[in-house]
Amino acid sequence: MMNSLKEIADTIAKYNQVVICGHIDPDGDCLGSMLALGTALKKQGKKVRLVLERTLPDNLSPLEEDWDYCYTDDFVFEPEDQLLIVLDSGALDRIPELPPHKLPIINIDHHMSNTFFGDYNYVDERAAAAGEIVYLLLEEMGIEIDQKIGYYIAVSIISDTGCFRYSNTNPRILRLMADLLEMGIDTASIYKDFLASHPLRKIRLRGLVYSRMKTAFDGRVAWVVIDQEMLKEAGATVDDTGSISSELRDIKGVEVGVSILEREPGLIQLGLRSNDYVPVNEVAMIFGGGGHLRAAGARVRGDLEEISKKVLQKIGEYLE
Amino acid sequence: MMNSLKEIADTIAKYNQVVICGHIDPDGDCLGSMLALGTALKKQGKKVRLVLERTLPDNLSPLEEDWDYCYTDDFVFEPEDQLLIVLDSGALDRIPELPPHKLPIINIDHHMSNTFFGDYNYVDERAAAAGEIVYLLLEEMGIEIDQKIGYYIAVSIISDTGCFRYSNTNPRILRLMADLLEMGIDTASIYKDFLASHPLRKIRLRGLVYSRMKTAFDGRVAWVVIDQEMLKEAGATVDDTGSISSELRDIKGVEVGVSILEREPGLIQLGLRSNDYVPVNEVAMIFGGGGHLRAAGARVRGDLEEISKKVLQKIGEYLE
Repeated sequence: MMNSLKEIADTIAKYNQVVICGHIDPDGDCLGSMLALGTALKKQGKKVRLVLERTLPDNLSPLEEDWDYCYTDDFVFEPEDQLLIVLDSGALDRIPELPPHKLPIINIDHHMSNTFFGDYNYVDERAAAAGEIVYLLLEEMGIEIDQKIGYYIAVSIISDTGCFRYSNTNPRILRLMADLLEMGIDTASIYKDFLASHPLRKIRLRGLVYSRMKTAFDGRVAWVVIDQEMLKEAGATVDDTGSISSELRDIKGVEVGVSILEREPGLIQLGLRSNDYVPVNEVAMIFGGGGHLRAAGARVRGDLEEISKKVLQKIGEYLE
Repeated sequence: MMNSLKEIADTIAKYNQVVICGHIDPDGDCLGSMLALGTALKKQGKKVRLVLERTLPDNLSPLEEDWDYCYTDDFVFEPEDQLLIVLDSGALDRIPELPPHKLPIINIDHHMSNTFFGDYNYVDERAAAAGEIVYLLLEEMGIEIDQKIGYYIAVSIISDTGCFRYSNTNPRILRLMADLLEMGIDTASIYKDFLASHPLRKIRLRGLVYSRMKTAFDGRVAWVVIDQEMLKEAGATVDDTGSISSELRDIKGVEVGVSILEREPGLIQLGLRSNDYVPVNEVAMIFGGGGHLRAAGARVRGDLEEISKKVLQKIGEYLE
């Protein structure tokens, strides 16, 4: 069942001790919206705990010291805990594993695929970021958005819109960000800290990737094989390969960008991004994966070279 | 002398035959604002000519067919021309070379360094883009911003704010862009077309650059020498080296990103970008160049290796 924002606000108002969590592998939207809501509720005198599965990934390290986070490996519910708020998570199996509990759950999300797993649900798929909904919720609750809360909202929004580059950018979020700028929030430095601060090893890996990248089908496909050897040479990890297929897609004339990553010997991960007409989710499905029309992926067991050949061949069928 | 926007609007209203130009080496802001103003004035029944120095650079090619541009090599003023409007240009020596004329000049710009060269001047240095001022001017003139004009304004703004990544992004421009989005302007595809569509040779050059990049002073400087050999190997041109120093600055822990480009044998171009505390304009000045506190450059004649050594040494003095 879908609740109104007012029902969500009224429900939260009733409880004094709240546990908040997001999804596993937290991103800037997830953690930013957790911190924004957590800080706001704390300001109201509530006792708030933020739960994570593990220490923060590298790119979120600027938020490391901002909260005394709880981690699932030693997390226990306290008898006084009254409410669990889940942010930015499409389904319960996407959240960190928690001990059994009987707390009511509030589910606040912007994923179209949300399963409405909460006792209370507010899912706004037009929102570009969970932080956008938290902003509206705080307004509804009459909690003033101060500098600190505004900063977390901005982190959340800038992360999930790629600093307004992605097509999820909407008028509401731009106006909201204008208000935050007027409060003195420095969006350019948030962009820098969270989206444009790359570990050296990632740039070294780009050197190898762009040098070894190949094109096929008259330049309509740009593809690269990243094997263990290459990761080792750059001192890079699987985490550093993240956006390679979209980077290749951004080459002029390219319709499909493909990264073929050897995660471990015999386990191949495909990253597929297209621009206009190749439904890469269909290609991914052939290899047991899935995803969106223009962004998809798969994990396959087998021989690196054989799989590469087959992937190129399958993509070629869509280019004819 | 600085005029009001209303004075500018009233002045333009008086004339029926207008010539518009921007600065040499036009960028998205320059051309976008020329097209926005030109289209709007044409809609009012004026005869409008847009003057360029040469055919558009590669990255502006989506705007090639949008107008029947005039080029300076065969441009003559017509006896009926009444007014010259110069957009996005800090000084008269920044505009394409025009034949002698006695037309009144309107100077509309957002550069702090503007010399107020016009008979009428409107310089708003808080504006992130010339297109932002054109938007306000059209509102003042009561000209409806239609889809086409809105598109050009968006191209201008997205270009000069790096799609809202740069610190010039202001609340007004975000609200203005929200209005454009509501009109159906697709900012994500403008971003894609103008800022994220790289020629293959540019990416090949990145492969070489990132592979040969070096760090110095405990990783606080990332630098690369790009010689003629390297450009040849990538099939790249000097144009493709544009943002390399800022890309190097975006590496974690790096304070100064440096590109040392051999434009031609014996002619070295320095690109210097810093993050927080090195005044790279001072470094550039040592080599006869200049620029901003965090973004500067210089052209030096001399030996590639010697100059590289000296640049690193000078930067080092600021890091102590």
